[in-house]
Amino acid sequence: MITLPDCQARDTSDPLRALRDHFAIPEGVIYLDGNSLGVMPKAAAARAAEVVTQEWGQGLIGSWNSAGWFNLPQRLGNQIAPLIGAGADEVVVTDTTSINLYKVLAAALSIAAQDAPERRIVLSERSNFPTDLYIAEGLCRERGYTLQLVEPQEIGASLTADVAVLMLTHVNYRTGAMYDMGAVTAAAHTAGALAIWDLAHSAGAVPVELHAADADFSIGCGYKYLNGGPGAPAFVWVHPRHASRFWQPLSGWWGHAAPFAFTPDYQPAPGIQRYLCGTQPIVSLSLLECGLDIFAKTKPIGGIAALRAKSLALTDLFIALVEQRCAGFALGVATPLNHAQRGSQVSLTRDRSEDGQSSAFAIVQALIARGVIGDYRAGDGGSHKDILRFGFTPLYIGFEDVWNAVEQLRQVLVSGEWKEPRFNAKHAVT
Amino acid sequence: MITLPDCQARDTSDPLRALRDHFAIPEGVIYLDGNSLGVMPKAAAARAAEVVTQEWGQGLIGSWNSAGWFNLPQRLGNQIAPLIGAGADEVVVTDTTSINLYKVLAAALSIAAQDAPERRIVLSERSNFPTDLYIAEGLCRERGYTLQLVEPQEIGASLTADVAVLMLTHVNYRTGAMYDMGAVTAAAHTAGALAIWDLAHSAGAVPVELHAADADFSIGCGYKYLNGGPGAPAFVWVHPRHASRFWQPLSGWWGHAAPFAFTPDYQPAPGIQRYLCGTQPIVSLSLLECGLDIFAKTKPIGGIAALRAKSLALTDLFIALVEQRCAGFALGVATPLNHAQRGSQVSLTRDRSEDGQSSAFAIVQALIARGVIGDYRAGDGGSHKDILRFGFTPLYIGFEDVWNAVEQLRQVLVSGEWKEPRFNAKHAVT
Repeated sequence: MITLPDCQARDTSDPLRALRDHFAIPEGVIYLDGNSLGVMPKAAAARAAEVVTQEWGQGLIGSWNSAGWFNLPQRLGNQIAPLIGAGADEVVVTDTTSINLYKVLAAALSIAAQDAPERRIVLSERSNFPTDLYIAEGLCRERGYTLQLVEPQEIGASLTADVAVLMLTHVNYRTGAMYDMGAVTAAAHTAGALAIWDLAHSAGAVPVELHAADADFSIGCGYKYLNGGPGAPAFVWVHPRHASRFWQPLSGWWGHAAPFAFTPDYQPAPGIQRYLCGTQPIVSLSLLECGLDIFAKTKPIGGIAALRAKSLALTDLFIALVEQRCAGFALGVATPLNHAQRGSQVSLTRDRSEDGQSSAFAIVQALIARGVIGDYRAGDGGSHKDILRFGFTPLYIGFEDVWNAVEQLRQVLVSGEWKEPRFNAKHAVT
Repeated sequence: MITLPDCQARDTSDPLRALRDHFAIPEGVIYLDGNSLGVMPKAAAARAAEVVTQEWGQGLIGSWNSAGWFNLPQRLGNQIAPLIGAGADEVVVTDTTSINLYKVLAAALSIAAQDAPERRIVLSERSNFPTDLYIAEGLCRERGYTLQLVEPQEIGASLTADVAVLMLTHVNYRTGAMYDMGAVTAAAHTAGALAIWDLAHSAGAVPVELHAADADFSIGCGYKYLNGGPGAPAFVWVHPRHASRFWQPLSGWWGHAAPFAFTPDYQPAPGIQRYLCGTQPIVSLSLLECGLDIFAKTKPIGGIAALRAKSLALTDLFIALVEQRCAGFALGVATPLNHAQRGSQVSLTRDRSEDGQSSAFAIVQALIARGVIGDYRAGDGGSHKDILRFGFTPLYIGFEDVWNAVEQLRQVLVSGEWKEPRFNAKHAVT
């Protein structure tokens, strides 16, 4: 039996415990939604004031040089690189995840069209993050490719001689299941396909080694586990063997070899800089640095390996406590129990009732009302197993938080308060 | 002869004078570069703090609903609409100008490919803003079109039966020359071509009537005359007759008809919302509202027509004072003297010396050292006439500012201080 004092003791001996002091966690909240929008680093308030009132307000146009705005995409990219196993000057922060996926998928299709024009399929997972599928669907329409969607266990057999590109999200947003990036990339390469990895639910949460896995392209999100702020710009990495090979289609001024020469013709910059396009939202971009600075602080205390160890300990504890304290309430676990296949979240499941009412939705609402913030995702592809999703960010979630979150869940289930009409309204927007 | 007291008297009687109190203009600065990056509205400091510490820090994921993040692109679009002669719910603010141009040019080419597949030319102006040409160059390569670049006076004759799309910037960034949008659009339509207008140097600066001109597509910038902050997201408008007709290629979740249904297949939202793509940088996006709120305050005192009248008075005054007080220093005026053809800037010219040194560059640097901030643009297409560019934002520039700017220019020229080595360094980044 695990007890509250056990959890408290684990916090006391946790070498990462002090990191939570860098975050502004609202009073009375246990925030298990950092996989959707990360918590604000305390430094962000002062940084926002500095960028707005000093860099913009006082420095004005001169801040492009004096405040380093022009090199911000590269500087932030270099801060992300060690978190994802990329090299220096191989990552830029810019635009959105969706738009960066468009760039790299377009580049991958250009390479495939030249190297293997007979391959006409983009292969992905049916429950990949929807916006990734939408972008791929649009690009496939445009270029005459077929987007083939399969289940994770069907990927190996689906890597036929027709597949040009395999496009996957490393950690599934819904279940938290994680691919073996090295093995899947190797299978893609053996089959003659290029591999694109979306790291939206990986970067900052689990160890990623893009070079070791020999990935071809990668993109990821700035506002989830990297704590960059709402809608913080995204990142993009391209293996150096591909980076200078093709124009990506969004050929804007910031990706030009001589962006201030104002020549009428486009000449792409060498390397990853050509994946830049238009002028970036400097205030939002600058705030991402506050999130990345905290990762730099983890280096002397074990870095991403230590974060991973704590993340697994947190998710193990959550699963064990739900089994121990919420038994008999028909909850399942969608997230793999095998550590090698688990991201930094736990997705519980609950069957939808026969009249279509989602108890999972209502339970999540009741938990939010009690200050435990997770989120709800409907059952996939007509499944009746709706999901209660809980993200565990090892930078600011502690073991006692896990105990308290499960205690609140237990109370919601025991009391049946989730059946109240106020928790069963039409599904909210997020 | 115009005198300083004349200028001061004009400020006193200027009904728009009080508007400058809404801006934080640095001490000792006359800022004539609002056509590159607009000045900070005073409200932006508090708004940034609110979005960061309250909406993000305290509201966290719930702010998508409670703080109205989800509708921000539409809400801001509706604030821009009256400034550009667009209707309600026809404009969204999102992404960058370059990316929005990609969307609308791709949509225009899709329409042309269906309605007039034999037309294979995208026509534009040789000295159009470079990033617009880069985007068009990329898209033309991709889709097998030819990008034809001509001089402004050649556009009429170049509108042949081969032209699918005419793509122009309404006010030229370099010279400040402005097209007659209605007449040029009519000529394009008569020739069977679609018309795309970039309003980067128009929106908030000169009257624009997209519907009256019967334009097809339009994009524009949030951080120049709209004072949205560095890299503030851009806007996009599509005539309702086209808006629901084609997918734009950047088909991301925010442009989906049911963005929270998480379905694997893309279904575009009706109307302009399908021109949204990925998650937007909420902090930068929110700050644009501070700039737009000031335009709303101009409504009872004459709105955009009053701003236009003052802008023309300011640029007339600047030209007259340069002629009166800086005669004999070989300055030319590249900006049209005809009001109907002038934007809200004045571009002076000065010949480059035979050894290639740019006196225009050095004079601008010397002016900046004296607190008069304009900028420099090299002569176009090998021209020796380099440009000293001065933007006049009627919201915060006064008539005495114009006097003082010309007085500083006169002193720089009379003293010859611009010849000092410190002003003749290698051309700076911006």
